[in-house]
Amino acid sequence: MVSDVVSGLDEVFHPTSVAVVGASSTFGKWGQMILTNIIGGGFKGKIFPVNPKSRTICGLRAYRAISEIPDSVDLVFITVPARMVPEVLNQCGAKGVKGAVVISSGFSETGDEGRLLEQEIVNICRRYGIKLIGPNTMGIISPYAGLFATGVHSRPGPGPVAFISQSGNMGNQLIHWARQQGIGISLFVGSGNEAMLGCTDYLEYLEQDPNTRIIMLYLENVRDGRRFLEVAARVNYEKPIILLKGGRTQAGISAAASHTGAMGGEFRIFQGACRQAGLISVDAPAELLDLSAGFSSLPLPKGNRVGIVTLGGGWGVVTADKCNENGLVVPPIPDKIVDTIGKYLPPFWSKGNPVDLVGTRDLEVPVVAVEELLKYEGIDAVITMGFVGRHELVSLLIQTTREVDKTAADWFLEQVESLSSRYEDDYVAKMVELMEKYEKPVIGVSLTRSEKGTVRPVDGEKYSGVFYETPENAVNALSKMVTYTLYHRRRRASL
Amino acid sequence: MVSDVVSGLDEVFHPTSVAVVGASSTFGKWGQMILTNIIGGGFKGKIFPVNPKSRTICGLRAYRAISEIPDSVDLVFITVPARMVPEVLNQCGAKGVKGAVVISSGFSETGDEGRLLEQEIVNICRRYGIKLIGPNTMGIISPYAGLFATGVHSRPGPGPVAFISQSGNMGNQLIHWARQQGIGISLFVGSGNEAMLGCTDYLEYLEQDPNTRIIMLYLENVRDGRRFLEVAARVNYEKPIILLKGGRTQAGISAAASHTGAMGGEFRIFQGACRQAGLISVDAPAELLDLSAGFSSLPLPKGNRVGIVTLGGGWGVVTADKCNENGLVVPPIPDKIVDTIGKYLPPFWSKGNPVDLVGTRDLEVPVVAVEELLKYEGIDAVITMGFVGRHELVSLLIQTTREVDKTAADWFLEQVESLSSRYEDDYVAKMVELMEKYEKPVIGVSLTRSEKGTVRPVDGEKYSGVFYETPENAVNALSKMVTYTLYHRRRRASL
Repeated sequence: MVSDVVSGLDEVFHPTSVAVVGASSTFGKWGQMILTNIIGGGFKGKIFPVNPKSRTICGLRAYRAISEIPDSVDLVFITVPARMVPEVLNQCGAKGVKGAVVISSGFSETGDEGRLLEQEIVNICRRYGIKLIGPNTMGIISPYAGLFATGVHSRPGPGPVAFISQSGNMGNQLIHWARQQGIGISLFVGSGNEAMLGCTDYLEYLEQDPNTRIIMLYLENVRDGRRFLEVAARVNYEKPIILLKGGRTQAGISAAASHTGAMGGEFRIFQGACRQAGLISVDAPAELLDLSAGFSSLPLPKGNRVGIVTLGGGWGVVTADKCNENGLVVPPIPDKIVDTIGKYLPPFWSKGNPVDLVGTRDLEVPVVAVEELLKYEGIDAVITMGFVGRHELVSLLIQTTREVDKTAADWFLEQVESLSSRYEDDYVAKMVELMEKYEKPVIGVSLTRSEKGTVRPVDGEKYSGVFYETPENAVNALSKMVTYTLYHRRRRASL
Repeated sequence: MVSDVVSGLDEVFHPTSVAVVGASSTFGKWGQMILTNIIGGGFKGKIFPVNPKSRTICGLRAYRAISEIPDSVDLVFITVPARMVPEVLNQCGAKGVKGAVVISSGFSETGDEGRLLEQEIVNICRRYGIKLIGPNTMGIISPYAGLFATGVHSRPGPGPVAFISQSGNMGNQLIHWARQQGIGISLFVGSGNEAMLGCTDYLEYLEQDPNTRIIMLYLENVRDGRRFLEVAARVNYEKPIILLKGGRTQAGISAAASHTGAMGGEFRIFQGACRQAGLISVDAPAELLDLSAGFSSLPLPKGNRVGIVTLGGGWGVVTADKCNENGLVVPPIPDKIVDTIGKYLPPFWSKGNPVDLVGTRDLEVPVVAVEELLKYEGIDAVITMGFVGRHELVSLLIQTTREVDKTAADWFLEQVESLSSRYEDDYVAKMVELMEKYEKPVIGVSLTRSEKGTVRPVDGEKYSGVFYETPENAVNALSKMVTYTLYHRRRRASL
């Protein structure tokens, strides 16, 4: 049975009409940032600005109050000062509004008076059956509903990764990074003060949300640890939960206490419980995204044995070290595979794993090497490095050649440029095809930082290419995916 | 007394004339990549292409052999097949060439035959007093001499960081990253097979090189461990050495053995010795650059007590945790400082360290907060987060506003845009000024990844702004700087 919380939230996160109370034309006000983001993000439903002093805002008719809006309203964003929020919510209740995102601050985070006010708005919402998000939240984004309603106007596309954050600025930053890295988002919620709905409720919602396959969580404190762990363990079994806990140390706990007004509890106990629940713990914000990219785009590895295919030796060494230090194994490979790959390489090549392709320019050999390793039952995953991102360096060489060698034929340089660019796209497509064929992950490392982002989707394919910026990020993501697989297997065996 | 190795190398790395033997117009050949990079990089000395089959290459007169060049030649790059290298070096010797960079592979890395050939070229170079770099190297760059001679046409500006790499592709990647991050380079040497000159020799050279203040080292194996450690310890006392050792684990050691043909030795023993010598060990390539940025641009911290000034609470929590986990302390701050900063903030602000500026838009308050912390004798360094990189988000907001609100005044939006952009530059300049005033480091974290790079120099100033992409990178760099300071202090006390 779907719980009440969950069924109601679906309408809140996929509204057909929204209102912004406190909507404004004044640049930089919350009521301006939220409204312009909703309009600019292309929300297809109705949008009602509410402001007693304006007739139109951003070309839309403005209303003096929620009660004056002629249509029904599913979701309301509230940016007016805290003391005005109860009255607005009362009007929302009378109007039959389903959800309210209270952006306004000045509640429990400010002291006793604010705490009373917060209790008051919870009571009003309960009375009317309004789902309350926040207060003191930086908003939500719901890309499948075309709804972007935060102060940050960075808009990642729809995708399988949900993100719940107890910190506003962490949310802003990670939304922006997600867009830059090409990570698709199913839902973002800044949970704010969690006066009514908390992280555990959102997890229960995401559990049954068909758009969500992976969940990122930034937590500073959990109200009801027992319920959280029970729900998280259950959800995590189907949808990996990647968790960054703020307040792991005394310094972090004090910092968290002073900015959210809540206590963090004993981290070691919490950490142990999370490990038992199989949650994937990280300790830095960037890791949340790295792991989301891997978990959402690649098949899970069935074990910890890694094949490495590298354009150059140094990277192979560094990556083998990192694998060892992270519980992964870089096993020897059979002579048969060595012989097959060796046909494409000079006689003095490394003849083992890592497969060092000694700077080859043969465009076929990296593909052959990756496939040979994937075929082999003694390898669970392949890390491939340097074949994507090389184009940027080729372009630099072409540019100099054009500048300094007037005899160089333009048509030829253009052909090289387009060949090299096309090769990278083909390589990504090939890796995706091989992942589907062998159901093993291929984790890429780009030779240079690319504008194209970490995740490189291929039209119509189940998996996407993932090309990290550094070998250490690739190894870290893979090793956490292995940990998750092993947990999953143990848990399945025990059920 | 300056050793012979060292005095000779100065002329090699600052040549007035160079030749490329194997120079070519064929796109993508080593002789083409090296020659075009030297020309395109703007080398001011004479450049002599050598190729028996061409009259001109890249508009320069080509010579059939070294012996036919009418002028003197300081430095020769050799890209012809290995078996032809001895004859070329003989000609170089007769010509009085001072140094040879042998790009060609096919020497000791390929087996016994290659090993003999390598010994032969060493003997020739010894006979003539030629400094031999390589063979099997990807080249050198010497930005102060305007000399860029590698296959990667990415050209970082001149600066205080030298980089010696035993791996070619690691070198390529890091040179490219250094340019992207704005890290200035004094010298890069790919040491290749180290047939004559090895890492220890280059360290001795860098010890007295006035352009070099920081040294990055990527090592896979060291021939003479005792001499290396002795020299490294001495050099490191004056110029911090940041070391990435490839082959830390068995998997890494086997990978290194197969690609360089040399054994790595026992890492734990080596690691212990490096720690005793005070070298700064890292375990990933990207860290080499992060630490170079910090060490080359900031004053060293005198202790481990950190003040944190953050635009938002979540980042403060995460950073405080990371500090604690890396041996740094985030101490409470006196009421007087709290009161001074509090004048600029709403009454419910965090009132402590981390100083959470709750999303302030007041452009003055972050500067005040940083200075108050720097002034305080209980703080050794400040981490400041979110005030640089915000401009990108402001731009996105301006863009939407322009799109959706036709009543928004263009002149006003333009003014906001330019104000916000200028503010970031002013903020960087102010941080640099404060570092000079208080001789304490200010480590920045950018809210978004910026095209402007990690290092932000300010005209005419001793220090530069450093703005990392993530809090964890900032904390890691700072904690290693503290470790170096403490080592330095202990060592000085014991001298």
